[in-house]
Amino acid sequence: MQLGLSFSDSDVSSFTPLVVLELADDTKAEAITWLLNRIRDKQQNGGAELLVNQLLFPAQDDQKSNPNVFVVGSTLQRLLNGAEDVGLFKEFQDGTMRGFTYANRESFKDFNGDGEGFLSDAECQYIIKHGLDTLRAKNEQHVPGYPKLKLYPGKSVVRRLQSKGVLIQYFPLHNKEDLKRLSFSWYKKFKLSFQPLDDIRHYFGEGLALYFGFLEYFTFALVPMALIGIPYYLFDWEDYDKYVLFAVFNLVWSTVFLEVWKRCSATLAYGWGTLSRKKAFEEPRAGFHGALGFNPVTGREEPVYPSSKRQLRIYLVSVPFVLLCLYLSFYVMMVYFDMEFWAINTYHENPNIATSILLFVPSIIYAVVIEIMNLLYRCAAEFLTDWENHRLESSFQNHLVLKVLVFNFVNCFASLFYIAFVMQNMVLLRQSLATLLITSQILNQVMEAFLPYWLQRRRNKKVHKRMRRLMGDKELPLLGQVQLETEMNTYLGTFDDYLEQFLLFGYVSLFSCVYPLAAVLVVLNNITEVYSDAFKMCHVFKRPFSEPAANIGVWQLAFETMSIIAVVTNCALIGLSPQVKAYFPESDTQLILIVVAIEHVLLAFKFILAFVIPDVPKHIQVKLAKLDFDSLEALKKRVSTHLHMCTYLLHENRKCDSLSGSTSVQIVI
Amino acid sequence: MQLGLSFSDSDVSSFTPLVVLELADDTKAEAITWLLNRIRDKQQNGGAELLVNQLLFPAQDDQKSNPNVFVVGSTLQRLLNGAEDVGLFKEFQDGTMRGFTYANRESFKDFNGDGEGFLSDAECQYIIKHGLDTLRAKNEQHVPGYPKLKLYPGKSVVRRLQSKGVLIQYFPLHNKEDLKRLSFSWYKKFKLSFQPLDDIRHYFGEGLALYFGFLEYFTFALVPMALIGIPYYLFDWEDYDKYVLFAVFNLVWSTVFLEVWKRCSATLAYGWGTLSRKKAFEEPRAGFHGALGFNPVTGREEPVYPSSKRQLRIYLVSVPFVLLCLYLSFYVMMVYFDMEFWAINTYHENPNIATSILLFVPSIIYAVVIEIMNLLYRCAAEFLTDWENHRLESSFQNHLVLKVLVFNFVNCFASLFYIAFVMQNMVLLRQSLATLLITSQILNQVMEAFLPYWLQRRRNKKVHKRMRRLMGDKELPLLGQVQLETEMNTYLGTFDDYLEQFLLFGYVSLFSCVYPLAAVLVVLNNITEVYSDAFKMCHVFKRPFSEPAANIGVWQLAFETMSIIAVVTNCALIGLSPQVKAYFPESDTQLILIVVAIEHVLLAFKFILAFVIPDVPKHIQVKLAKLDFDSLEALKKRVSTHLHMCTYLLHENRKCDSLSGSTSVQIVI
Repeated sequence: MQLGLSFSDSDVSSFTPLVVLELADDTKAEAITWLLNRIRDKQQNGGAELLVNQLLFPAQDDQKSNPNVFVVGSTLQRLLNGAEDVGLFKEFQDGTMRGFTYANRESFKDFNGDGEGFLSDAECQYIIKHGLDTLRAKNEQHVPGYPKLKLYPGKSVVRRLQSKGVLIQYFPLHNKEDLKRLSFSWYKKFKLSFQPLDDIRHYFGEGLALYFGFLEYFTFALVPMALIGIPYYLFDWEDYDKYVLFAVFNLVWSTVFLEVWKRCSATLAYGWGTLSRKKAFEEPRAGFHGALGFNPVTGREEPVYPSSKRQLRIYLVSVPFVLLCLYLSFYVMMVYFDMEFWAINTYHENPNIATSILLFVPSIIYAVVIEIMNLLYRCAAEFLTDWENHRLESSFQNHLVLKVLVFNFVNCFASLFYIAFVMQNMVLLRQSLATLLITSQILNQVMEAFLPYWLQRRRNKKVHKRMRRLMGDKELPLLGQVQLETEMNTYLGTFDDYLEQFLLFGYVSLFSCVYPLAAVLVVLNNITEVYSDAFKMCHVFKRPFSEPAANIGVWQLAFETMSIIAVVTNCALIGLSPQVKAYFPESDTQLILIVVAIEHVLLAFKFILAFVIPDVPKHIQVKLAKLDFDSLEALKKRVSTHLHMCTYLLHENRKCDSLSGSTSVQIVI
Repeated sequence: MQLGLSFSDSDVSSFTPLVVLELADDTKAEAITWLLNRIRDKQQNGGAELLVNQLLFPAQDDQKSNPNVFVVGSTLQRLLNGAEDVGLFKEFQDGTMRGFTYANRESFKDFNGDGEGFLSDAECQYIIKHGLDTLRAKNEQHVPGYPKLKLYPGKSVVRRLQSKGVLIQYFPLHNKEDLKRLSFSWYKKFKLSFQPLDDIRHYFGEGLALYFGFLEYFTFALVPMALIGIPYYLFDWEDYDKYVLFAVFNLVWSTVFLEVWKRCSATLAYGWGTLSRKKAFEEPRAGFHGALGFNPVTGREEPVYPSSKRQLRIYLVSVPFVLLCLYLSFYVMMVYFDMEFWAINTYHENPNIATSILLFVPSIIYAVVIEIMNLLYRCAAEFLTDWENHRLESSFQNHLVLKVLVFNFVNCFASLFYIAFVMQNMVLLRQSLATLLITSQILNQVMEAFLPYWLQRRRNKKVHKRMRRLMGDKELPLLGQVQLETEMNTYLGTFDDYLEQFLLFGYVSLFSCVYPLAAVLVVLNNITEVYSDAFKMCHVFKRPFSEPAANIGVWQLAFETMSIIAVVTNCALIGLSPQVKAYFPESDTQLILIVVAIEHVLLAFKFILAFVIPDVPKHIQVKLAKLDFDSLEALKKRVSTHLHMCTYLLHENRKCDSLSGSTSVQIVI
């Protein structure tokens, strides 16, 4: 892609812009100069060695465009070195995945000539992001022009600028050509096929590709359940013998489903090079604060915050707060049921149009209140998790996920549990389940994709109009693209998408033996979900930075927990069914004992199954072992080669002696 | 230790003998010569580069001593190189544990002069064992003199000789000085103190030290339970309110106990350098057979056995066999109870001396039958697991442990379960529990330590007499020691010791709320167990090769499973108690539901607790992270140093160019 506009700096030839950096429009000039110099400076001087240029808008722009927008690119050499720095795994000539090293570049598959095209766009952008993130302060006391933006040696410059609002955002640019190709093969051709996961991974990175892989896998896994569920609906099978069969099938299915997914995900992650990739040392997150001290691991100066204090905050404030919110949620639910009873009674006492409308009021109010509560709670959870002051982004995310998960679970399922086990009204349960599933699906699709798309289209039109007015017929594709993408919404990660799937999984597995049609609805939902999610990633949101991921992380645990709860609820539902009760006419005691015994056997069976099925398929295990073995062998060889070399140098060439001697120690360290 | 006897070879100066190698006494001379040459040969020629000499017995020996006994030792240099080969971790100057490398030897703590005393005896013997085990066939088609002992390139010579019975055994020698010191500090001084775990580890290796660490930890952890249990016994507290309290305490205790043990074991293993030690590539076990093929990991020729066949053998033969045995065990138990009832009825019908003796007959018969069944089953399990043809010793062990564990569990606890939940006779349960605990303890101590000790002493006396007759007053300490130790029993690993602790843990945790005194008995047992086990290791058995272990492996899982079962049984016992039943006079249903609910809450609480408590203590986590970080940094530095070196060599010294060029690739691989 050639740039069609002038840069403020002319000493750098034009380059492919990959990342956009937006500073606040009132940023002081000296800070900008300093930052640009640091970004351009050589790596051995502590710079990022990247190419960066200001994006200049035509002077006749009447709307106030932010002048401090920069595009960042990189030379190929820098990218290849960076690939080694970030520990990228690429396919080796022998088909295994190995850590890329610049010295061995020729031995990697698909490395031709100077390496053009060897790294995907997403990888290049990830390397640039890593370069920017690890740009560290040297001896600066503060950011030039901002005496209050304190720096200390080793502090990440970008994170400090970001946490203080000088750096508004930085994001990767879309590649229009690739995007067109991807979106065609992904959702535009109307035939049933698997998603192009490898292409998605190439364009958006492993984290997102794994989400879409999971979505697809989950949907396919539901198909047998849906197929079994349809006759239940069509032929109105009301006898619980068949429901019992369905429930047992469901339990085995949910365990096998999750175990097999682990294997699938390992296979995918291996092929993408993230399975055996060593996690780089994680930097403290932008918001982390504390007294300046020394990191015991790196020995570097950085903020230190005692973990005992964090534990206190978690256990004395966050946990009680979450429990209080859960209590509140229960309370609201009870009020809803009271209102419901009152409405029904009113209707029965005096059936007319007004009271029949009244019947719907409690449900509507409850739905609205739940949505508001979810929103408020989400804000509170984010605030609290931030306040807990986690050092790492990953642990921040885990704590946030856990908080939100628990609350959403209770909010979504509490009323169903109440209907099932306190009211023991299976007909009402089935109705509520169907209503909840269908409404939440429609709401989700609208809120997630169509509303943002509509807003985005309006914005697009405005930008296009303005551009046309500004440039006339001049083609300024980059300028327009940056303008457009800067104003797009930011994709906040896969959190909400996984949460939705998690709740759907709950609907399917928790009460499936009462409402076998749930699986059909979820399959239908997920087919549209693939399309709307794909569309939203390609056209509604800014391109996200790729996120290397080896598995779906905390969500695996969440799904497994749900499947354990499902065993309990399904057993209890079977125990409650009148048909099963009819077998034990004399006493409930025996029935309950048998149900509990079956439940324990099923749980034990579940754990044994999870234990027996290996998490990583055999052929991947062999490849991983081979990698380990080879690196051990190489280590041995290196030591002996090294010894030979030293001996050789010592004997043959005294001149090299001192040099190789000093090097040798460093090599062996 | 200087050798006081002549060797058959005089070209090697005397050395410290560390390992004894015993070949069959009819081994052909050419095979012996070949084996010794291979053991002595330089490593670069594929030998083991160890020192080995035949132990010659005086000619006047009238008893036929095996002439083919050899002692193996090593030079210090070889041991230090071997320490690097086996991946030993030692304490670095900065207090962290790092992989030992010969090049960096000076930077390790306690490395003085030429490194004498840097490696412990057990480590030296482990290195020699590794050297012997990895002595591989080169181009030999078979062992010289034995056309039927086929070899192929890469086959471990020692394993082939062992599997065909030519090599009878090889074992490490005791070090009498160290042993005296160790046994004094371990069990001879009669004051209460912790065991000298570090010394045990130095002498016997990490695997055994971890067992003794676990034994000590388990005993200390039981002390609070024992203290709480005593008043229950003394004051005859029969009200179940207090038992409920005790049971809840017990549940929390058993979870916390196991979680904290993980942390303790991580701390111990870190200090011993086994926690972060990379597992060496595991060789196929001696008995493994299959068609010759290529190992997909190493690419070496070795027997290959399809894992699908093994799975078939496991699931179609072993699993049904185990289930059948379990059924048989139940059946025997039912017969026992029938006999018991019959005996009691006979006594009640006609109470006299003969019938009162008859009362004891069923118990005695049952106890004897159980012992016989355990023995038979153990043999069958070993045969079956061997027949399953596992490639690795570790997976063989795991499958064997699992088989034996399940059967022993059922054999020991089935009758208690029957009494508790079918007969619901709590008084009988308490009696049986006490009887089982006390008799099994006494039996164990006798069978484990005193009987072997008595046999050993008889053998010792015989050997001493013979030696005195042979040598007169000549001092031949090594010859006598080797003679003695060759005939000592072989310690078969920690399996039986852990199994005993596992069953004791079962007695304490499963039915503790009925018989709180169990903890007291187990504490008393374990105090004597420490002494008898220590004694048996030092004086009854051959010294075992040290076994590097980072944790107690499959036993952690076994104990955790037991603690989960304990939650279920304790809740059920509480539900059965008449005092609790009295609270729900109108119906059992409500009681059962409440008990089940409490059980589920407790189980959930248990899992959350296990999840929340980190498995590795913070300070060890930091040290491990530091190690990772340092090796990443060193890698970066190495690459850049290497690049600098190449540039330097290219520019400064054209002569070195081709050399450093070719080396560089190998270094980076």
